[in-house]
Amino acid sequence: MADKSLALVADLGESFGNYTIGDDDAVLDLVTMANVACGFHAGDPRVMERTVRACIERGVEIGAHPGYPDLVGFGRRAMACTEDEIRTDTLYQMGALSAFVKAQGGTLSHVNPHGRMGNLTVTDPVHARGVADAVAAFDPELIVVTQEGLLAEEARVRGLRVALVFLADRGYEDDGTPVLRTKPGALLHDADEVAARTVRMAKEGVVRTVHGTDIPQECDLVLLHGDNAEAIVNANKLRSALVDAHVAVKPLREVLADKARAVTV
Amino acid sequence: MADKSLALVADLGESFGNYTIGDDDAVLDLVTMANVACGFHAGDPRVMERTVRACIERGVEIGAHPGYPDLVGFGRRAMACTEDEIRTDTLYQMGALSAFVKAQGGTLSHVNPHGRMGNLTVTDPVHARGVADAVAAFDPELIVVTQEGLLAEEARVRGLRVALVFLADRGYEDDGTPVLRTKPGALLHDADEVAARTVRMAKEGVVRTVHGTDIPQECDLVLLHGDNAEAIVNANKLRSALVDAHVAVKPLREVLADKARAVTV
Amino acid sequence: MADKSLALVADLGESFGNYTIGDDDAVLDLVTMANVACGFHAGDPRVMERTVRACIERGVEIGAHPGYPDLVGFGRRAMACTEDEIRTDTLYQMGALSAFVKAQGGTLSHVNPHGRMGNLTVTDPVHARGVADAVAAFDPELIVVTQEGLLAEEARVRGLRVALVFLADRGYEDDGTPVLRTKPGALLHDADEVAARTVRMAKEGVVRTVHGTDIPQECDLVLLHGDNAEAIVNANKLRSALVDAHVAVKPLREVLADKARAVTV
Amino acid sequence: MADKSLALVADLGESFGNYTIGDDDAVLDLVTMANVACGFHAGDPRVMERTVRACIERGVEIGAHPGYPDLVGFGRRAMACTEDEIRTDTLYQMGALSAFVKAQGGTLSHVNPHGRMGNLTVTDPVHARGVADAVAAFDPELIVVTQEGLLAEEARVRGLRVALVFLADRGYEDDGTPVLRTKPGALLHDADEVAARTVRMAKEGVVRTVHGTDIPQECDLVLLHGDNAEAIVNANKLRSALVDAHVAVKPLREVLADKARAVTV
Repeated sequence: MADKSLALVADLGESFGNYTIGDDDAVLDLVTMANVACGFHAGDPRVMERTVRACIERGVEIGAHPGYPDLVGFGRRAMACTEDEIRTDTLYQMGALSAFVKAQGGTLSHVNPHGRMGNLTVTDPVHARGVADAVAAFDPELIVVTQEGLLAEEARVRGLRVALVFLADRGYEDDGTPVLRTKPGALLHDADEVAARTVRMAKEGVVRTVHGTDIPQECDLVLLHGDNAEAIVNANKLRSALVDAHVAVKPLREVLADKARAVTV
Repeated sequence: MADKSLALVADLGESFGNYTIGDDDAVLDLVTMANVACGFHAGDPRVMERTVRACIERGVEIGAHPGYPDLVGFGRRAMACTEDEIRTDTLYQMGALSAFVKAQGGTLSHVNPHGRMGNLTVTDPVHARGVADAVAAFDPELIVVTQEGLLAEEARVRGLRVALVFLADRGYEDDGTPVLRTKPGALLHDADEVAARTVRMAKEGVVRTVHGTDIPQECDLVLLHGDNAEAIVNANKLRSALVDAHVAVKPLREVLADKARAVTV
Repeated sequence: MADKSLALVADLGESFGNYTIGDDDAVLDLVTMANVACGFHAGDPRVMERTVRACIERGVEIGAHPGYPDLVGFGRRAMACTEDEIRTDTLYQMGALSAFVKAQGGTLSHVNPHGRMGNLTVTDPVHARGVADAVAAFDPELIVVTQEGLLAEEARVRGLRVALVFLADRGYEDDGTPVLRTKPGALLHDADEVAARTVRMAKEGVVRTVHGTDIPQECDLVLLHGDNAEAIVNANKLRSALVDAHVAVKPLREVLADKARAVTV
Repeated sequence: MADKSLALVADLGESFGNYTIGDDDAVLDLVTMANVACGFHAGDPRVMERTVRACIERGVEIGAHPGYPDLVGFGRRAMACTEDEIRTDTLYQMGALSAFVKAQGGTLSHVNPHGRMGNLTVTDPVHARGVADAVAAFDPELIVVTQEGLLAEEARVRGLRVALVFLADRGYEDDGTPVLRTKPGALLHDADEVAARTVRMAKEGVVRTVHGTDIPQECDLVLLHGDNAEAIVNANKLRSALVDAHVAVKPLREVLADKARAVTV
């Protein structure tokens, strides 16, 4: 039987002008795919081009990471946007990033909405439909990367492929949603535990919730962080644990192909 | 002998959020092509989508109108950008606009840099190379719309097609450049005179300079303005004058094809 | 018995760069006080200086009109800001406007939060405390202009003076809040009715709600609009109706002094 | 005879939103005064408040550091602004910063224009007059911090006090201007040499140019850098060298008072 495979993703290209965030170089050695900021909540045209180039050089899949037009808030503050605003802001940002991808002969592979806008696509129909419509209109070959929820549903309705992301360092509720950041158990701080539960999710398809229940959780990719030196060490640890457990770390398109094959068999 | 043909262009989609500039609807009935603002000096994602839709509905050719990242200055203040900044800002803006064009099944046909950035592409190698490299990398099928000068040269060197724009209401110097706005004779205020010199440019290929000399001036398109009711009336007058003089008003691609044919003959 | 007096206010200085909104000149002839945009949701340094100058020339009281940092949304989209963000954004904007007032030898007289941020100060403690703390720290002489609600309470707790604004063209609920814009009866379109109910509020201290009940409503100032020619005509009509009914139209500081005197008597 | 005294300054508060630049805490222990970014080229309302608070807690004099409205360019790209734009942008930024100073009971002590705008105030009359007019109108007690040049002249003409800054790590031309960054000798990399020439400037009032000439150079303050760990070490070295050489490190107002006294004697 074919072993489970997983893709590894991180948010990249979040620097802006004279400001640097994250050690993108180190992270690029660990991931198979990147969510690239598009200039609204982070990133600028120079950063976007550099990030796209680095991804292409290392064979890392490139995705758009559109966010709210709120640089000072880093896209982390909810904004009461209309569906039209979500849709057109997403179109604008996907288009802007795709220019750098096209100019360098690469391919845009996926879309993953950022921050609070991303959170709301999971639960708010206005956000979910706005992003899903933008992707369907721009390029139906793009994979929508999200957690299970409204965006995943709206994307499937439109015939788009969906890939589910595992938030390895987040506690989960019994209904499969991540514990709110304001509640206890929201964040796991032990890197070994984070690695172990990721391996378990990959091999057994379950995750233990903050309430001690095992629930099904079948994800296609895992989100890594690269904000600081410790995060890089932990991300390395997680990748190694997967490899040691014979979980294949692969590009997302291959992961989805493996899954399709497994279903067929 | 085939009569001369000309395209008519205007800058459109310059509204922003709650702010409206120009009577785009009226102008769209007069032009064959539009320079659409891309969100840096003017325009926003909603305005861009509406403008692209209106162009497609009326068969107006769509071009990107990238500018400096200076909304409060409307892109009219020179900025000491590097070639890298000009190039990546242009890529970003072309990409953003192209998302709306692609999502609606249209085609992006040309690029015309805006305002002071546009002026400087004619005389400054940094600006000229930045824009030319961006267009060549993004889509070599795009037509570069400019006045004769450095950008035209850099574009031709890269194998790009160039279309020359006639500034109908501007005085010209003997070397073929428009009179600086700070000098006398920079602006022509008589709509009949503006129409007459456009017809003469089209039929005879010459324009009379502010110094009274006739100089050669062979343009492919004419820039119209739609900022206010008077401008619309004058633009109508100019279009009528061309039609009365049997100058064919056509899409730019057909104008360039006519010219290619004329040269071959 | 001293007749009731009222101040008249409008939102001014909402133009930005090359973009013009509103006929500020016409409105300035009608009002006794102005809410001046501070560059976040509208306005720029040139517009702010011009607006302050026009107010000083005509003896119109000058107030800060701080809003969300959301130019493209004109400050009309709710943003999930922290109390710290509301407070510091308000301080920043009051300070910026006060520079133009100080440089021209004028006095800043009041503060009135704009748009959605302003709405939320009435009902949301985070918004109310953020604005109240900013005003108390910056200048406790400033009058807080708002509707009855949380901001009014928080301001009074801090020893700030509060002035209540009457929304003349809005329907009211039985609890004294304006009818939500999405509901029937939210907006009154008959200028005569708008003028009549304003006179009644001034003379009798009551307003009839959308449900037909008369409720007490004692305001110190009335909000006028100047977005277009019709709005100007209606504002004129309202002002004339007040004058005809012997309601004194006065600067807000005099209105508040009249009220204090009336209470004492 | 009274020994020479000097103030020490650094650019602070350049972080923005989620982005951090510089080790402001370490630098605040070394300087007597701070140039605080005002939100146009760097800084945001939260950063401004924190920086002002830290300055007040440590008795560091607070100055406004206005720059071009160009966050992505960090105010380092020349912009062809009008005198009106320079003046009103400076007023706006001084006012915004002063709100945080006022709210915390502090005093704004000086103004020093940032980056390329600052450079151009030395040589370009439009920039020099714009800044000088803004300061004179806003608060004639503010000290204008600059190099010798047009801004110093325009400030003196308006009756403003001027303090001259020594760029300790820059080579100087024979005419007293810093060597352009594109030329050899522009930057001194040896921290001991930087310290030694600063001591010599303080004690003897001369600096040796890149051409080997000793020229007079009497400055009131010295610019330190705190961008990274090495810069902090070097700044410490410079301060120690001054103290060892019995150059008094003092607040700028005292330095100017010492100088006035010395002239009188």
